[in-house]
Amino acid sequence: MKLASLKHGRDGRLVVVSRDLTRATDAFIVVATLQQALDDWERFAPALAALAEQLEHGSVPSFRFHEHDCAAPLPRAYARRHAAAWPGYPALLRQAAGAEAPAGEAGALRHAASDGFLGPRDPLTPDDPAASLDLSAGLAVITGDLARGADAAAAGDAVRLVTLVAEVIRHDRLRPDGLDLDGAEAPALAASLAPVVATPDELGQAWRDGSLHRPLLVSRNGKALGCPDAGTDLGSSLVALVAEAARHRPLGAGTLVSAGPVSNRGIDGGPGRPTAEGGAGYACLAEARAAEALTGGWVRTPYLAAGDRLRVEMKDVGGHSIFGAIEHDVV
Amino acid sequence: MKLASLKHGRDGRLVVVSRDLTRATDAFIVVATLQQALDDWERFAPALAALAEQLEHGSVPSFRFHEHDCAAPLPRAYARRHAAAWPGYPALLRQAAGAEAPAGEAGALRHAASDGFLGPRDPLTPDDPAASLDLSAGLAVITGDLARGADAAAAGDAVRLVTLVAEVIRHDRLRPDGLDLDGAEAPALAASLAPVVATPDELGQAWRDGSLHRPLLVSRNGKALGCPDAGTDLGSSLVALVAEAARHRPLGAGTLVSAGPVSNRGIDGGPGRPTAEGGAGYACLAEARAAEALTGGWVRTPYLAAGDRLRVEMKDVGGHSIFGAIEHDVV
Repeated sequence: MKLASLKHGRDGRLVVVSRDLTRATDAFIVVATLQQALDDWERFAPALAALAEQLEHGSVPSFRFHEHDCAAPLPRAYARRHAAAWPGYPALLRQAAGAEAPAGEAGALRHAASDGFLGPRDPLTPDDPAASLDLSAGLAVITGDLARGADAAAAGDAVRLVTLVAEVIRHDRLRPDGLDLDGAEAPALAASLAPVVATPDELGQAWRDGSLHRPLLVSRNGKALGCPDAGTDLGSSLVALVAEAARHRPLGAGTLVSAGPVSNRGIDGGPGRPTAEGGAGYACLAEARAAEALTGGWVRTPYLAAGDRLRVEMKDVGGHSIFGAIEHDVV
Repeated sequence: MKLASLKHGRDGRLVVVSRDLTRATDAFIVVATLQQALDDWERFAPALAALAEQLEHGSVPSFRFHEHDCAAPLPRAYARRHAAAWPGYPALLRQAAGAEAPAGEAGALRHAASDGFLGPRDPLTPDDPAASLDLSAGLAVITGDLARGADAAAAGDAVRLVTLVAEVIRHDRLRPDGLDLDGAEAPALAASLAPVVATPDELGQAWRDGSLHRPLLVSRNGKALGCPDAGTDLGSSLVALVAEAARHRPLGAGTLVSAGPVSNRGIDGGPGRPTAEGGAGYACLAEARAAEALTGGWVRTPYLAAGDRLRVEMKDVGGHSIFGAIEHDVV
């Protein structure tokens, strides 16, 4: 099933969304918010799935689903752990910076802000126009409860929902490992989730080996920045990250484990090529810039500026949007 | 007023606690959980304060308050930012490790786990008996909503509640700045809050200049480890940390901003002295060990082991416990 939260108060109003994202039906007869559903998933999920089935058959009252009415599916979460799970990204940034990548650092999980995800169509309002703002697009899973030290099988079973994530970060102060230059957290100005979350069973064959195997479509002002495949060149599967997150402490229902940016290497094993040169492109501006610096010496891709429109989406094999689109205007 | 959450479900059952911590009354006639109270503080706080007043006068039904019945006051929070706000601690650890402290690193805020605070009397169950476990005791404030870029005055107004925090961390892998040796978050095995949270007005003259000016009493197996004054040798006030946390992104109601370990320098400006030598002692084991290594060369203070009992408390000028005690047995 697919779920979304319409803008309403701090936690949104939960709706069940049709597979093709055209129609929705209120979930409040079952449960009011996504966090409440996750807190007691065994009780609520079957009723929500039944509602989804009725929605597909047209046997329940429904309304047109508009992505721009959405808050983030989970507008605030109690926990988020984030990793640069595609090692091509930190390796390339480090290479461009002239430093050697310390072994084992890519893929390390860090705590990340989870208390105020932007809605998928909310505008971005940077606080410092002079900062080098970047977009980093990736994937997120939302888990149920998971015991400390759980194995990969239990971690896989704990994945309740899958969606897309986009982070707006200040890249001028960011180290390749995602930390600020002085060792503190990088100031993530904002993060957003796709309009819709989907249960793994909804993803069919694209969800396998603990990860989602589809290209992530990232564009800027209608022009493709990249379409790297999320199932390729992945250092740690999403499920492996969930298990890693639970290594030292249990995870609570509604924990987000996110990974990004998606990054594919070139066919020669080197930096990924721009889409204009037949490559998979990039899911963040910093990687595009680093690749330009390494291959051509001339950095053509600017950081974000007012007036830019960013779009992040993932489509199924039939070309239909799976989670809806994250689309932000920079104002 | 003083509030606590009795163990009940994921979010506890909110109670109003008497000033002397002996009696409590249910808050559910006003609001069910502390997060709900924080979400709509202007609406609920006056009614909770009225209940607190009635409790003091004995004009409302009440029951004996037992600290061991408590969950953390906010068992799960949507956000926590943590800093080593007493610079003596990272400086001393770095000195003991033979490295020079990079400028400006102490006091940097990082995202920290907020999704599963232990109750104040819950046992500690380390996952690896061979790890070097440490306790770090400090302070935490819980904020209301605060706009991005808010000034210190607005940050001060946003402080809703004050309490104590204790973190159990693996020190064998920890850098002095609180990060893991490989640059990722240190694995904080657990964190707990004191049984009771208090509004700033409840703290009287001890709450001034944006911080709490009372000694933090830390003991192990009944023997004092330290009583460093939380208002002394503080690099950043708690309110300044709240403002810093809101510099790049707004804070949501129920955000914890925590700081620790409390650390006082010696009267000569050097490392703090043990309580046995008339000093203020320490609020974490690593600092005690670093001071021993620097002054005597012989490290006598062991890391945590099974059978240890840790206690963290703060008393008012009359000698009465303000927030109740955090007391954990290591099993």
